[in-house]
Amino acid sequence: MMRRCELPARDLRLLDPLFVYPSTVLGRERAIVVNLEQIRCVITADEVLLLNSLDSYVLQYAAELQRRLLQRAEGDELPFEFRALELALEAACSFLDAQAAELEIEAYPLLDELTSKISTLNLERVRRLKSRLVALTRRVQKVRDEIEQLMDDDGDMAEMYLTEKKMRMESSVFGDQSLLGYNSAGAAGTSVSAPVSPVSSPTESRKLEKTFSLCRSRHDSTKGSDNTTTEHIQELEMLLEAYFVVIDSTLNKLTSLKEYIDDTEDFINIQLDNVRNQLIQFELLLTTATFVVAIFGVVAGIFGMNFETSVFKIENAFQWVLVITSVVGVFIFCSFLWFFKYKRLMPL
Amino acid sequence: MMRRCELPARDLRLLDPLFVYPSTVLGRERAIVVNLEQIRCVITADEVLLLNSLDSYVLQYAAELQRRLLQRAEGDELPFEFRALELALEAACSFLDAQAAELEIEAYPLLDELTSKISTLNLERVRRLKSRLVALTRRVQKVRDEIEQLMDDDGDMAEMYLTEKKMRMESSVFGDQSLLGYNSAGAAGTSVSAPVSPVSSPTESRKLEKTFSLCRSRHDSTKGSDNTTTEHIQELEMLLEAYFVVIDSTLNKLTSLKEYIDDTEDFINIQLDNVRNQLIQFELLLTTATFVVAIFGVVAGIFGMNFETSVFKIENAFQWVLVITSVVGVFIFCSFLWFFKYKRLMPL
Amino acid sequence: MMRRCELPARDLRLLDPLFVYPSTVLGRERAIVVNLEQIRCVITADEVLLLNSLDSYVLQYAAELQRRLLQRAEGDELPFEFRALELALEAACSFLDAQAAELEIEAYPLLDELTSKISTLNLERVRRLKSRLVALTRRVQKVRDEIEQLMDDDGDMAEMYLTEKKMRMESSVFGDQSLLGYNSAGAAGTSVSAPVSPVSSPTESRKLEKTFSLCRSRHDSTKGSDNTTTEHIQELEMLLEAYFVVIDSTLNKLTSLKEYIDDTEDFINIQLDNVRNQLIQFELLLTTATFVVAIFGVVAGIFGMNFETSVFKIENAFQWVLVITSVVGVFIFCSFLWFFKYKRLMPL
Amino acid sequence: MMRRCELPARDLRLLDPLFVYPSTVLGRERAIVVNLEQIRCVITADEVLLLNSLDSYVLQYAAELQRRLLQRAEGDELPFEFRALELALEAACSFLDAQAAELEIEAYPLLDELTSKISTLNLERVRRLKSRLVALTRRVQKVRDEIEQLMDDDGDMAEMYLTEKKMRMESSVFGDQSLLGYNSAGAAGTSVSAPVSPVSSPTESRKLEKTFSLCRSRHDSTKGSDNTTTEHIQELEMLLEAYFVVIDSTLNKLTSLKEYIDDTEDFINIQLDNVRNQLIQFELLLTTATFVVAIFGVVAGIFGMNFETSVFKIENAFQWVLVITSVVGVFIFCSFLWFFKYKRLMPL
Amino acid sequence: MMRRCELPARDLRLLDPLFVYPSTVLGRERAIVVNLEQIRCVITADEVLLLNSLDSYVLQYAAELQRRLLQRAEGDELPFEFRALELALEAACSFLDAQAAELEIEAYPLLDELTSKISTLNLERVRRLKSRLVALTRRVQKVRDEIEQLMDDDGDMAEMYLTEKKMRMESSVFGDQSLLGYNSAGAAGTSVSAPVSPVSSPTESRKLEKTFSLCRSRHDSTKGSDNTTTEHIQELEMLLEAYFVVIDSTLNKLTSLKEYIDDTEDFINIQLDNVRNQLIQFELLLTTATFVVAIFGVVAGIFGMNFETSVFKIENAFQWVLVITSVVGVFIFCSFLWFFKYKRLMPL
Repeated sequence: MMRRCELPARDLRLLDPLFVYPSTVLGRERAIVVNLEQIRCVITADEVLLLNSLDSYVLQYAAELQRRLLQRAEGDELPFEFRALELALEAACSFLDAQAAELEIEAYPLLDELTSKISTLNLERVRRLKSRLVALTRRVQKVRDEIEQLMDDDGDMAEMYLTEKKMRMESSVFGDQSLLGYNSAGAAGTSVSAPVSPVSSPTESRKLEKTFSLCRSRHDSTKGSDNTTTEHIQELEMLLEAYFVVIDSTLNKLTSLKEYIDDTEDFINIQLDNVRNQLIQFELLLTTATFVVAIFGVVAGIFGMNFETSVFKIENAFQWVLVITSVVGVFIFCSFLWFFKYKRLMPL
Repeated sequence: MMRRCELPARDLRLLDPLFVYPSTVLGRERAIVVNLEQIRCVITADEVLLLNSLDSYVLQYAAELQRRLLQRAEGDELPFEFRALELALEAACSFLDAQAAELEIEAYPLLDELTSKISTLNLERVRRLKSRLVALTRRVQKVRDEIEQLMDDDGDMAEMYLTEKKMRMESSVFGDQSLLGYNSAGAAGTSVSAPVSPVSSPTESRKLEKTFSLCRSRHDSTKGSDNTTTEHIQELEMLLEAYFVVIDSTLNKLTSLKEYIDDTEDFINIQLDNVRNQLIQFELLLTTATFVVAIFGVVAGIFGMNFETSVFKIENAFQWVLVITSVVGVFIFCSFLWFFKYKRLMPL
Repeated sequence: MMRRCELPARDLRLLDPLFVYPSTVLGRERAIVVNLEQIRCVITADEVLLLNSLDSYVLQYAAELQRRLLQRAEGDELPFEFRALELALEAACSFLDAQAAELEIEAYPLLDELTSKISTLNLERVRRLKSRLVALTRRVQKVRDEIEQLMDDDGDMAEMYLTEKKMRMESSVFGDQSLLGYNSAGAAGTSVSAPVSPVSSPTESRKLEKTFSLCRSRHDSTKGSDNTTTEHIQELEMLLEAYFVVIDSTLNKLTSLKEYIDDTEDFINIQLDNVRNQLIQFELLLTTATFVVAIFGVVAGIFGMNFETSVFKIENAFQWVLVITSVVGVFIFCSFLWFFKYKRLMPL
Repeated sequence: MMRRCELPARDLRLLDPLFVYPSTVLGRERAIVVNLEQIRCVITADEVLLLNSLDSYVLQYAAELQRRLLQRAEGDELPFEFRALELALEAACSFLDAQAAELEIEAYPLLDELTSKISTLNLERVRRLKSRLVALTRRVQKVRDEIEQLMDDDGDMAEMYLTEKKMRMESSVFGDQSLLGYNSAGAAGTSVSAPVSPVSSPTESRKLEKTFSLCRSRHDSTKGSDNTTTEHIQELEMLLEAYFVVIDSTLNKLTSLKEYIDDTEDFINIQLDNVRNQLIQFELLLTTATFVVAIFGVVAGIFGMNFETSVFKIENAFQWVLVITSVVGVFIFCSFLWFFKYKRLMPL
Repeated sequence: MMRRCELPARDLRLLDPLFVYPSTVLGRERAIVVNLEQIRCVITADEVLLLNSLDSYVLQYAAELQRRLLQRAEGDELPFEFRALELALEAACSFLDAQAAELEIEAYPLLDELTSKISTLNLERVRRLKSRLVALTRRVQKVRDEIEQLMDDDGDMAEMYLTEKKMRMESSVFGDQSLLGYNSAGAAGTSVSAPVSPVSSPTESRKLEKTFSLCRSRHDSTKGSDNTTTEHIQELEMLLEAYFVVIDSTLNKLTSLKEYIDDTEDFINIQLDNVRNQLIQFELLLTTATFVVAIFGVVAGIFGMNFETSVFKIENAFQWVLVITSVVGVFIFCSFLWFFKYKRLMPL
């Protein structure tokens, strides 16, 4: 396979299903190495080599690809490799968007539940949710960066216009030889006829120009092919732009979810702190009350001592002790309340 | 509609009212795809196709657009598509600014109330406010980034100069044919005559040049049209600059609000912690006092035991016990106070 | 006024004193729109139109501007608009620096006070300080970004060289006509003679070149004027560089202050947590002591029950009970202390 | 050695094993200075000078390098210096990836253990883990930035194509002299014959062109060599791209781990707060219960006082006191419970 | 001095020792304004004007500069101004690195001490350390940014090649006049002979070319001098690259230290929270125990009341009451323990 696409071993290693490398789109001399989520393939000018072709998701991609290529006959100016790339982007975008939507559906009710009832179970679920969110955000971010980088670099986009490169190479090698009769078979069963013939015409006209004008030929021809190339690159850029908006929208969703989680955590933290303060306020009130009651108990204890004093003989001493102690106790309690209110420790 | 503007399906999908894609301005071959907040339209060289035309907000935009285009006759050098784009920008900016102002009016009193009274209800309201703020900030940020990106990329701005592109195309196809008689009808009822005639003159003068000089024609003509284009692009850049300042000011407001919320949350956290420490300080004081009272109670309990000892016969033992225990209790309490003060645990 | 400077309404709106737009410096066809803090003016090739001219701060700027322009006669090669811009930058920089210094003087003592005494009043003051700091930082940042952006974009700087542009325009319109006799009156009373004459000489020499060589004239002339322009742009760049360092230094101060506040808040948080832990440690100790005392009290209570048992008849039972209970109480208390120390909960 | 590679002392200082400088790849006139993790070497057009050659890791690199260079004879178009650089990158990437994998294996179980059991020991281990993670992340980040910077700067990559530079220099010095007979011996025992001969042909053909055409020679020759150089630079860029993906994947792993740690810490913080609130809730409940019990105790104490009142003579007073006090106590306790529930302080 | 170096007042103001501006290196027409930490100087093509020359640190720099310039005679191709700049960079880098190392030596033991013993004193020291760290990091960052900015901008570097500029100016003014006889005296006593003569040769050869070819002279000469300039700029870039790595390594150290502090603070926060939870757990246990003891006390109090009931006459009632109450108390306590364990509040 390496020989077929003229790819070095180190590029193919990136598609190895055993390792999980981040999403990448690399333009090479004769192939585009695509590693977008599940879809790991090598796109050449007239083939798509799918690597992990047993995955149901990838099979779906292959079927869709074949279906679309059949439609192509109805007139579509995009070269083969761009169509394959578009389909890979579309598949990756919709896959990621579906995962993001799934995460959203799960997350929002869970977070709202968490604000009303904080339990270890819910916290654990939110933690797992965050792990998944971070992982998904990274993957979406990676795809987005890859698209953005491709759009920014015209050279990379030109490099991807494989059909043009192949044409040029062939025309320089075979001359006017027939360009028909290519057999292309995808490694994963994707067999499509290469979109060679319609694109070959500019090359031929270029050849004519070459014989016509000697000194200007080279300049013009490059100009001429440049025009076609530039047009196709612009189409590729527009294609990428559209999917960039889609993946950016997915990323937006995930970032919103992340910020919602962060806000919820802030809310929970302040809420927990606030509840704790209220709990401690009541505890302080109860401690104050217990203190007053303890004083009452001490008074009762004092008069329960077995000493023989004349106090016990005083008339109505029992009532007086109870009344005086009660009044003092209530006074102490109210003083504390007033003091706490004065210190603004309690919203009494 | 796709055929009319030569837009691929994937671009129009971005305007679909069912999906909420972030704000985007895409320059295409014959149209500008605008998705700024409510306003989702396709601007061509002489039409504006409004998509969600039933929305009251969009109707207002359409009315304003028609009004302005009538004023145009009084002499304004901007091409049709730039005027439509400007109006869309203005509408989006003022819409977002109004929403930001509304949020501000609601937020500041709520936050100041929160600092004086922290309740679950207020916290919940602040949380909802933050969600709205984050969502609005993202939308404003998106519009701002879109404007900035357009300003940075001269190529994109040139791409948007549709009138010029159309002129060039027509002049190359129809030659000196009459350019009059265009019928343009907006899909949403916006029907305006295209600003074609005044702009066509530079094209014709260019044609003259072409016949005049053979070898230099191409170079000069591109120079000539470049001058006009550059001028118009500069006007577009200035237009974008002005709205960039406006949207940047809105973003500034929102960022300030966000930081005000963050500062308030920091303040509340420290304040809650501080109040809690004060509560615990008083609780510690009361625990100390209760401890002393408990010692007193134990002393009383000891002398309330039913053992027969000679202690109870001692004269004035009752008074002595009370006095000694009280003195010891006060001493213990004061020792604790001094100790806490020494440890700097309390600001006594 | 719009007609005078050929500015569209949307640019002038940015200078509207009723709205607070962030700092902006916009280079336009015949004017520089300056909105730096208080100073909102339009600088043309020979006028400065001050908008909010009643402000004392702006009057000071106008006076300084007149004074400097008089000094100009002593030989200074900077064009009029650059001198006005420099003065506006200087005024804005020194104004912001003064405000930053004021904030610093207020902040550091307050923060140091806060670390030793955390009170609601101090926290509230720090919060207000942070609001002011954030607002000021944003304004400084905005001015800094504006200067940086101007420096990075040579085109924008060239656009600002209004004198040159005016010269070129006039020379192309009036030919060899006299360039003398300009009347320029600032809207705010700033009336200065335009620095026209010395700069007009290169234009004239350029005209000579034009008559001398036909085919090379255009190329050379742009080269020639380019040299002068480039030189002036370099001077503008150096001017901006110098003020960039000044405003960067102000921004540095504010960022340092911000980080000092953040560090202080971290310190306060850990300090509050630490003090709270110590408070709870003492409370735990006291709870332990109270527990022991309560056990003593229960023992006393048991022997205070009115049951008739033989226990009360035992000799010295009173002493024995007291001694045994005390020993057990002390043992329990020490066990707890040892246990807390073993668990590393207390630094005993 | 400085003379051999024409490197200034300051560049060699960066390779000093005593100092730990961050990873760097510097392209110099006749050498590439490589400092990637353990591997510190100077690569010239036909030598690799390894500095810390006693390290087992570096010896392995040297062995692998020799092995690969022997394979080279089987046809590989990469120049010597790129092959050496690739091997150094591969060694550094796999080394860092191995360390990252090791850290991951250790971290995840530890963090999951921490969520279920928070102990000082576990916290201390997590802290050490974070230190190692931060250090490793920085090193990976540094290598990644270095690769990215090289890829972005075509000039730097061209500078690294030492073989080409050497060829050009020799051809201009020695003319048609034989280029054979180079002896190259690596300082660390790496002795390889320089890949000179096959690359020298374009130089010679260039010389021919020089004699052929006078005025165009220089332009063409640079064009010609430029083509070869550009091709090799593209190969270098592809090589760097592949290793960039690998190191980026390692960085991704580490960032994921970092975010997992952060999420775990957030989780632990909320969990600790939540548990604390529950503890305080139970303490409040117990304080309430103790308060009720204390009231009961006071009632008992009151009737245990030694006053002589008629209360004690009432029939069944004992039972009535117990019943009434119990009912009142239960009522007080239930009131508190209802109040706490009403205040939403407890999820009863 | 302003006249000597043709520097405007605003540039010299940046060197004012009274103000502390961030590190800056500005390339001016005839001088480089250097403000790197202590070293504030103006470097011209053959002079170094040191401003704060009394500082011991700066004197050392001057001495080293003189020593190196003497060595120069032994053959070094760097122009005078680059050598002076290199020395200033070296001095600043080593000064900052020394300060960073000092900070590191102080910080790590302090932080490790803090994890084992959190005291107000240690916290205060860490806070001061952080202030110093932040200030130093900013200064290092500033120097690093300045170097990076210089490296990125080829124009700025070319501007700094003062010798070349001076040569060109002189050759255009004096023609073949003798270039000898310059007197240069550093303001701070640094008197060095300018490296004029050896560098003047390319200028002369250029002059020859000028007389030789008329039409190509200008182009070639610029090319020729460009080659020399480009070479020198490349040398300057390599020089800056080397010091960039050094200062980047210092910055790395400081960032590591900052992250170590942050991790330690996170650790301390979780640790404090964890210890607090354990403290509250024990307090809850003790409160439970106290509650049980209080119930026991109430039972004792009940039977201590002076009512006359038949209960007191029951045989062995004393024992039965004790046994039953004890069993109930133990049962209540164990129920609470089981409940806390069930609620996962305590790791029993």
